[in-house]
Amino acid sequence: MDACVRDREKRGRASIHPFDADTQVGALTDHRFSAVISNRWNTLGGRAFGGYGLAICLQALRREMPLPDPLAVSAYFLRPTIPGPAEVHVEPVRSGRRLAFGEARLLQDGTEVLRALASFTTLGQAGGRTLVLNGRPHLPPPDDCVDLAASLPGVTVSDRIECRGPELPGWLRGQPTGNARATFWMRFRDPRDADLFAVPLLVDAAAPTVLELGEAGSVTIELSVHLRAHPAPGWLSCRAVTRYLIDGYHEEDFEIWDAEGKLVAQSRQLALLPVQAIAPRA
Amino acid sequence: MDACVRDREKRGRASIHPFDADTQVGALTDHRFSAVISNRWNTLGGRAFGGYGLAICLQALRREMPLPDPLAVSAYFLRPTIPGPAEVHVEPVRSGRRLAFGEARLLQDGTEVLRALASFTTLGQAGGRTLVLNGRPHLPPPDDCVDLAASLPGVTVSDRIECRGPELPGWLRGQPTGNARATFWMRFRDPRDADLFAVPLLVDAAAPTVLELGEAGSVTIELSVHLRAHPAPGWLSCRAVTRYLIDGYHEEDFEIWDAEGKLVAQSRQLALLPVQAIAPRA
Repeated sequence: MDACVRDREKRGRASIHPFDADTQVGALTDHRFSAVISNRWNTLGGRAFGGYGLAICLQALRREMPLPDPLAVSAYFLRPTIPGPAEVHVEPVRSGRRLAFGEARLLQDGTEVLRALASFTTLGQAGGRTLVLNGRPHLPPPDDCVDLAASLPGVTVSDRIECRGPELPGWLRGQPTGNARATFWMRFRDPRDADLFAVPLLVDAAAPTVLELGEAGSVTIELSVHLRAHPAPGWLSCRAVTRYLIDGYHEEDFEIWDAEGKLVAQSRQLALLPVQAIAPRA
Repeated sequence: MDACVRDREKRGRASIHPFDADTQVGALTDHRFSAVISNRWNTLGGRAFGGYGLAICLQALRREMPLPDPLAVSAYFLRPTIPGPAEVHVEPVRSGRRLAFGEARLLQDGTEVLRALASFTTLGQAGGRTLVLNGRPHLPPPDDCVDLAASLPGVTVSDRIECRGPELPGWLRGQPTGNARATFWMRFRDPRDADLFAVPLLVDAAAPTVLELGEAGSVTIELSVHLRAHPAPGWLSCRAVTRYLIDGYHEEDFEIWDAEGKLVAQSRQLALLPVQAIAPRA
């Protein structure tokens, strides 16, 4: 292969960002779309992490919704999402002037693994009152922060998403602090600014807050995301917190702010400690 | 009518609590249930408030789910729910050993007004780790608090639900404080302890936090509730907060704690200021 061909191939690959390549859907018939779950967004255990499956569903919904921007999305994780072929089935539920609603089902081998309900709108056209009663996360500039990548074997999502914080978290140094709050910067490692369709993936892409409580991981049951503004280009700052771990169930609240200091999204998920998820019945 | 008959009628009425009477569903065929939207749970504008419609959906889901307790529920409000006849259509989505999932659609005149996704479990059998990193609301005893009922014409839900706080909120005295945080006690006015199926109604039953920002009301788009423990009998203490009002869209976070100091539920809703909801397109 000559140098010219190699360069062209390199440029060809470079021109499709992993997020865009791996959340593409192809139109089949009757509100159905084909998709491929890539192994580039894996969490522990060879599974795709939840937010990635949701991002694929949103790309299919986007094709069927009469309004451009996701506003609220709720995903229920029925079964693990495994790298390989998939389909998304979309149901347009209601189309109003200001709000549209739709549902998406992600299927693998004919079995539903994720169901998401969503409302869409045109963000920025609302024009109502704004009053922000809480501040953005306070962080040193990204260049003064360290890369928080844990480099866990098989956890490929940390090759896609870069998180930077003032110092390594305790769990990463083998000393969980017991403080389930974190603030950090986030962006795609391969250059690409986040848009509204990337944000529901990003809110679920950082290490779970319960790692700082000495836990080994977190299995998402439900994830709801509210999109509040189009993100400006550049680094995103994030705030994550878990307040209530009860019988292994815990919430994780997550906020994303953009480089201009605007709140972009709020999310909350309900998750279970993984040991609980596989414990034998009492 | 003699005194004896009157007494019997009174006892008959008293034996079915308004919550139970007004969330009853009757089995039709093929996963369908009949329901009647009562006018006893109205908010402004002659509409039933959102949490009431969700409570009816949960009673229908309960009949079809193989596990007893709602764990996470997300409701999307497609259209106003108006007092009158309704149907609930249930779809069992997945039935696992520890988690079951189902969807409910509330229809009026053949048109869907609310769609809810839910996961069910057996709470209390999980047996994982518990670590509560935030305290219950601090309030004087209920007997030292005042009734917060606003007595707005047509808002019948305040005849069903009693809220008590240390003092009247600013908006109720005509002087909104600008502080969109509130803590208060809550219970049904007609004696009945709350159970897990009442809680998703209760998290939406108090006056919206944005009233304290000088706004006239709040129209719910999406409401997600996480049920964390069976409530003990008695008063419930609540904490509500809105942090981000952006272009008229705002979240309301709500917590319910029981008389024994256990967290019972966390909820978050995305809502829109009502003026925005009916504003003409720009």
